[in-house]
Amino acid sequence: MTTYPSDLPSFQSFCEKHINPALEQLFVAPHAEMQQLYHAMHYSVMNGGKRVRPLLVMASCMALGGSPENAIAPACAVELIHAYSLVHDDLPAMDNDDLRRGQPTTHIAYDEASAILAGDGLQALAFEVLGNAACKYGPADRYLPMIAILARAAGPAGMVGGQAIDLAATGKRIDHTMLERIHRHKTGALISASVQLGALASGHANNAKLAALSTYADAIGLAFQVQDDILDVTGNTETLGKQQGSDLQQDKSTYPALLGLESAHSYARQLRDDALLALANFDDKATILRQLADYIVQRSH
Amino acid sequence: MTTYPSDLPSFQSFCEKHINPALEQLFVAPHAEMQQLYHAMHYSVMNGGKRVRPLLVMASCMALGGSPENAIAPACAVELIHAYSLVHDDLPAMDNDDLRRGQPTTHIAYDEASAILAGDGLQALAFEVLGNAACKYGPADRYLPMIAILARAAGPAGMVGGQAIDLAATGKRIDHTMLERIHRHKTGALISASVQLGALASGHANNAKLAALSTYADAIGLAFQVQDDILDVTGNTETLGKQQGSDLQQDKSTYPALLGLESAHSYARQLRDDALLALANFDDKATILRQLADYIVQRSH
Repeated sequence: MTTYPSDLPSFQSFCEKHINPALEQLFVAPHAEMQQLYHAMHYSVMNGGKRVRPLLVMASCMALGGSPENAIAPACAVELIHAYSLVHDDLPAMDNDDLRRGQPTTHIAYDEASAILAGDGLQALAFEVLGNAACKYGPADRYLPMIAILARAAGPAGMVGGQAIDLAATGKRIDHTMLERIHRHKTGALISASVQLGALASGHANNAKLAALSTYADAIGLAFQVQDDILDVTGNTETLGKQQGSDLQQDKSTYPALLGLESAHSYARQLRDDALLALANFDDKATILRQLADYIVQRSH
Repeated sequence: MTTYPSDLPSFQSFCEKHINPALEQLFVAPHAEMQQLYHAMHYSVMNGGKRVRPLLVMASCMALGGSPENAIAPACAVELIHAYSLVHDDLPAMDNDDLRRGQPTTHIAYDEASAILAGDGLQALAFEVLGNAACKYGPADRYLPMIAILARAAGPAGMVGGQAIDLAATGKRIDHTMLERIHRHKTGALISASVQLGALASGHANNAKLAALSTYADAIGLAFQVQDDILDVTGNTETLGKQQGSDLQQDKSTYPALLGLESAHSYARQLRDDALLALANFDDKATILRQLADYIVQRSH
């Protein structure tokens, strides 16, 4: 069994070393005429993303004593879902963003039809990766719940639903409850799924552990969003890799707008503490999950 | 065990009676703010579609002696994938169609963002339905291959890839080989998956049966497309539920354009015969699959 590094920067490199080659091999076009589609998918995934969700899958697998190899397929699957959601969110009919991580968004680098299809293809690939790993490695009772959980988190009752509420709310005054509902669905659902998939991949999940990890995931998911909103106000375009102030420009409700900047900062820290508390009964193997909770509220991009 | 009707029209009603309520219950929004999304998904699925793919799932399950109940979840899943693909294909950046089955397409009835999200949500729902049925009913070794097969058929190496080649080929002169490649991916992959899912759902699939059904599916998949192209030339807008001549208008390559109308007709009939030949070793339980092969080349809409 490969051993996990125990500090976050090494763990991040470790994850990239495992995940990126596994992702890379998915983008070989079976026919020359499909190359543009495969290039567009490749472009959308291999773009220097932070791989937060794969990292969560692997860190959660590690926390329960599972082997890293078991986490690779689910880690790829959540990243494919995440990448597809960004491609579609950036479309002109949606958030209409030209820039993502400092690069042209997929519909700008290619065209709108290619971006729609690339997103559609990436979503299907996510389930193919999980389905194939399940058929090849098993055991089935580990993979089937992963598939059901990922599909629910990605779908209309999860991420897609969150994006729908978000779009409907743009330009409207919304309260804290509604803002929280948007984020719990739009970003929180997939973050929670990542942690659950990692726990299931370990082969040592039980209901108590899953419940604790779910509380942890809800807290860091929200913390991540609060920090994102803060950075939209305080960051600069270069380090963010996207237009600073783009939320404000689009008249989106954000935590700093709703709570004030200082309270948004305290809220992020409180969520970090909630996350750490949820892991109270976990041993040292949860160190990366703990470090990640800190990182999320301290990051500057 | 419910018994199957043995003639195609009764079998179609039987399928609708089983499939439509199962689909209908998927569209209950968990939050009021998601209602537009759920309405758009509902609109895209419950639109009087012919349910050819669910019928194939059930007929294939029947052919191998499986219970109809086993086929419901996979039948819903393939229909959700099909419905999502139509919603996205109709988008302005893709085929830009305003009319589908005589009704405004989803982005016309709602808006473009809702149509993108509805399609995304429907794809996720397809895998959720299969994943949930697998967790609830099992056995896992029946469902896991279904999930892998459906994901591959729906994804970039299947349906999405076919749509990408099709878009790239619009306005270009393409030969028979390329036209066949487009259709084998764009429509054939999901039709083939439907038949394989039905066989797996029966619990009595083996490699010989799956291979025979795959040959059958390839033949009827192409026959379906050839007939579609013929109807675009010879049908009328009212019975088709879409603009007659829209392929020609968009300068799409079609079988009548490539082979001439009469040869397109003979080709459809030859494919029908290939399909029937593939079922030579099946008993009377394959009657619906046989009748369906006939129906596909005889239908007028």
